[in-house]
Amino acid sequence: MRGLDWIDGTERGRDGFLALCARALELEQGEAPRRFPGKRLVSVFLNPSLRTRTSVEVAAGDLGVQAITLNPGSDAWKMEWRPGAVMDGDAAEHFADAVPVLGEYADLLALRAFAGLVDPDADRADPVLSAFCRYAPRPVINLESARWHPLQALADASTWIHRLGPDLRGRRVALTWAPHPKALPAAVPNQIALTAGLVGLDLTIAHPEGFDLDPEVIGRARALAERAGGQIRVSHDPDAALDGVVAVHAKSWSGWSGYGRREDEAKARAALSHWTLDERRFARADPAAGFLHCLPVRRNVVVTDGVIDGPRSWTTETAGRRRWTATALLEAILSET
Amino acid sequence: MRGLDWIDGTERGRDGFLALCARALELEQGEAPRRFPGKRLVSVFLNPSLRTRTSVEVAAGDLGVQAITLNPGSDAWKMEWRPGAVMDGDAAEHFADAVPVLGEYADLLALRAFAGLVDPDADRADPVLSAFCRYAPRPVINLESARWHPLQALADASTWIHRLGPDLRGRRVALTWAPHPKALPAAVPNQIALTAGLVGLDLTIAHPEGFDLDPEVIGRARALAERAGGQIRVSHDPDAALDGVVAVHAKSWSGWSGYGRREDEAKARAALSHWTLDERRFARADPAAGFLHCLPVRRNVVVTDGVIDGPRSWTTETAGRRRWTATALLEAILSET
Amino acid sequence: MRGLDWIDGTERGRDGFLALCARALELEQGEAPRRFPGKRLVSVFLNPSLRTRTSVEVAAGDLGVQAITLNPGSDAWKMEWRPGAVMDGDAAEHFADAVPVLGEYADLLALRAFAGLVDPDADRADPVLSAFCRYAPRPVINLESARWHPLQALADASTWIHRLGPDLRGRRVALTWAPHPKALPAAVPNQIALTAGLVGLDLTIAHPEGFDLDPEVIGRARALAERAGGQIRVSHDPDAALDGVVAVHAKSWSGWSGYGRREDEAKARAALSHWTLDERRFARADPAAGFLHCLPVRRNVVVTDGVIDGPRSWTTETAGRRRWTATALLEAILSET
Repeated sequence: MRGLDWIDGTERGRDGFLALCARALELEQGEAPRRFPGKRLVSVFLNPSLRTRTSVEVAAGDLGVQAITLNPGSDAWKMEWRPGAVMDGDAAEHFADAVPVLGEYADLLALRAFAGLVDPDADRADPVLSAFCRYAPRPVINLESARWHPLQALADASTWIHRLGPDLRGRRVALTWAPHPKALPAAVPNQIALTAGLVGLDLTIAHPEGFDLDPEVIGRARALAERAGGQIRVSHDPDAALDGVVAVHAKSWSGWSGYGRREDEAKARAALSHWTLDERRFARADPAAGFLHCLPVRRNVVVTDGVIDGPRSWTTETAGRRRWTATALLEAILSET
Repeated sequence: MRGLDWIDGTERGRDGFLALCARALELEQGEAPRRFPGKRLVSVFLNPSLRTRTSVEVAAGDLGVQAITLNPGSDAWKMEWRPGAVMDGDAAEHFADAVPVLGEYADLLALRAFAGLVDPDADRADPVLSAFCRYAPRPVINLESARWHPLQALADASTWIHRLGPDLRGRRVALTWAPHPKALPAAVPNQIALTAGLVGLDLTIAHPEGFDLDPEVIGRARALAERAGGQIRVSHDPDAALDGVVAVHAKSWSGWSGYGRREDEAKARAALSHWTLDERRFARADPAAGFLHCLPVRRNVVVTDGVIDGPRSWTTETAGRRRWTATALLEAILSET
Repeated sequence: MRGLDWIDGTERGRDGFLALCARALELEQGEAPRRFPGKRLVSVFLNPSLRTRTSVEVAAGDLGVQAITLNPGSDAWKMEWRPGAVMDGDAAEHFADAVPVLGEYADLLALRAFAGLVDPDADRADPVLSAFCRYAPRPVINLESARWHPLQALADASTWIHRLGPDLRGRRVALTWAPHPKALPAAVPNQIALTAGLVGLDLTIAHPEGFDLDPEVIGRARALAERAGGQIRVSHDPDAALDGVVAVHAKSWSGWSGYGRREDEAKARAALSHWTLDERRFARADPAAGFLHCLPVRRNVVVTDGVIDGPRSWTTETAGRRRWTATALLEAILSET
């Protein structure tokens, strides 16, 4: 059953991933999706959501699928997921009980569970999502976990294809770190690196010293890139990294080497406001290059209004594409179950 | 696109407004609404709701429309709406990004955003709803804003027509201020005044000194009333205002001149418990007169159980009519998009 | 209208109750439910829920019924239910207004409202649910109240029938009290006692001294048991109570005689960890006996992983059956309205 999961977006290989993007772009052009009356998706959100929740519910509607959304801790019980836990604390319910039951009600399950940002080994193991999958009797869709955001991957890649053409191999793209008032998880930059590797982009990740991504993620991304004819580079120069690229992603994240020293990192972040992506820096990219961000974004902190509201901002169209990519993914999984 | 918005209920003029009421009363009698399969409404609630949310979801169901409801701050991101904001505070997302994206997913958008009750000029500008509309690529329905509650307007007017007959011009109605433990926004009394003007009622608004409505609202209501053959009067006598009227609305609100002196106003309010609408005062109205309140209502503070539970209470039927008026409005907008 | 309510599960008598279980087991085998397009259920949750909310929404979907879920205090207004209340406190809305309005929108109403655990006479009167019913113009389904959990009753009994055969009369079952970090309501054990009586089980309720259930509930259960050929016994020996039984329910609850002395009871509870249901004790039951718990459950406090994850755990299948029993109940009520 785990074979139909959608955890980091690499499950169907490069061809399967690109086929989903192609299908999403067809649906966006007006192709009718298949219908699956009587099928159900239950989504569990342990963190807030706007695009993910809405686009998945819309996709379900387009497919004739009933979508039920739970928010444990507010409308459902607070959850434990550690095996063998003696449950005398806050959590009233264990994944070991909740997830199999939800599997009795639904054909597909989905979970959002962000990183704890306390213990690097724990976050690397993606513990909440992993536990959810361990107990799930149905295919699981990752709605953003400690490590990955594979629905965003489909939307980003569909925009790359829509804007840059179907052959992405060797196209030069930048991902630049950005300031933020809070320490943020690295699921989105991890996912961009992995997806870039999968489709064979030539990606430069620019970040300040100490804000490196998990070296294991970079390693996986590089292995994929090598196979697909791409590259994953790392730079500490926010200007040079953008020279001539055809797309720029900006995103804040907390560094892998910042674990255990969040206060130092907060001070470091405060001194890094020159990493905000502004018009001057964006101008170093190719004149036709687009700007992408997964949203929500802190305007005038991560990126200036001038860039995100400019004619080369691809953020709204990419977020809009979340609808079609979610439809394509659900359609594919339901066709195979 | 703004031409299809429903912001204060005057958008379609007197005839258009009355046509919606007539259609709602037809639907209530069993007429089948049109169906709009594949259409979607996304509603954003920044404040709680019972009737509005439920009646809109029921209306959507009757029309075959998928309704998705978001509660930013609980299940979605906290929102910023001020243009140019440097987003280093609490809000994780800007309307400038969220609203266009929701417009990619939905055919209609809707927002509830109450008054801040801090800055009179800000509230007069209806800043949150205005920002939402500015960024919205789809028609916007106001689910109650700082200034207006135009879905309630349709229900109130449908009850007036149902109970008093189709020609409302010159019919005498009272809106009386009421005590309340908290300072409340004036969206509902504003809307009653404006709607009364639109349909040509002879409305008396009774309130204690200092609890006046925004003079600009009164001015607009009077201009409309003049055109339609009605009147908008203001009184400070809660008894005389009810003499012989055919319908009585009670509602608490915070006065326009109370801005900036909420503590004084709270003291004033505490001394105004004789403004509670009770059976004795209600008896001054016409023997067939009905009682209306938009709900929720503080029983035995705003109005006594004797009035609201009495045979001439039109509150439940009016709230029930929210279903049919919402259906009529969505049907009209979707027919024109 | 009250004749169609589902409050404690005895409303349709023994035969009617067993007919619902039989219908649920048919639906589980693949029988198609009737369809009720255009019908609506509005559910009000004053407490969290996972299985109840999800299974009821899924059941509604299977029946073609629109299900709307409200969470007052988070997405809707905080509610008052006491008749005659002067509403100058926290609650913005009274059941007297909200419930009739919801009845204008829906064909069925449903409520979850747990026990207060402060005043035994209040909890015995099931005040919130009773008020809801008093104001409801439509049939009411109890989604778990201070006293009862009749949807769980249908699932428990369907599992008894599925596992033990259709004639339950005289079959020996145990309900054993269990430790818990918090004082819990007795709705579930009350319901097990009442349902056991209704279907004629020979039930032994084992609990420590002082953790007795409401004697009135035991009295009702015994009267039902007598009529059906069963028995309700009470024991203080957690081992002997399980000897040879064919099903074991474990559940924590706060004792009826513990009202007014919750601190003493918390101390008592802390010394009762030997009441945890473990493999050693469970082995005293019949070799084919199953374990049941309504969920959520505190693992390794109420019951060990070894029991609940063992081959004779019927918890997931029973929770899964909540879907089919909810469908059977809604189908029956909607067929009669």
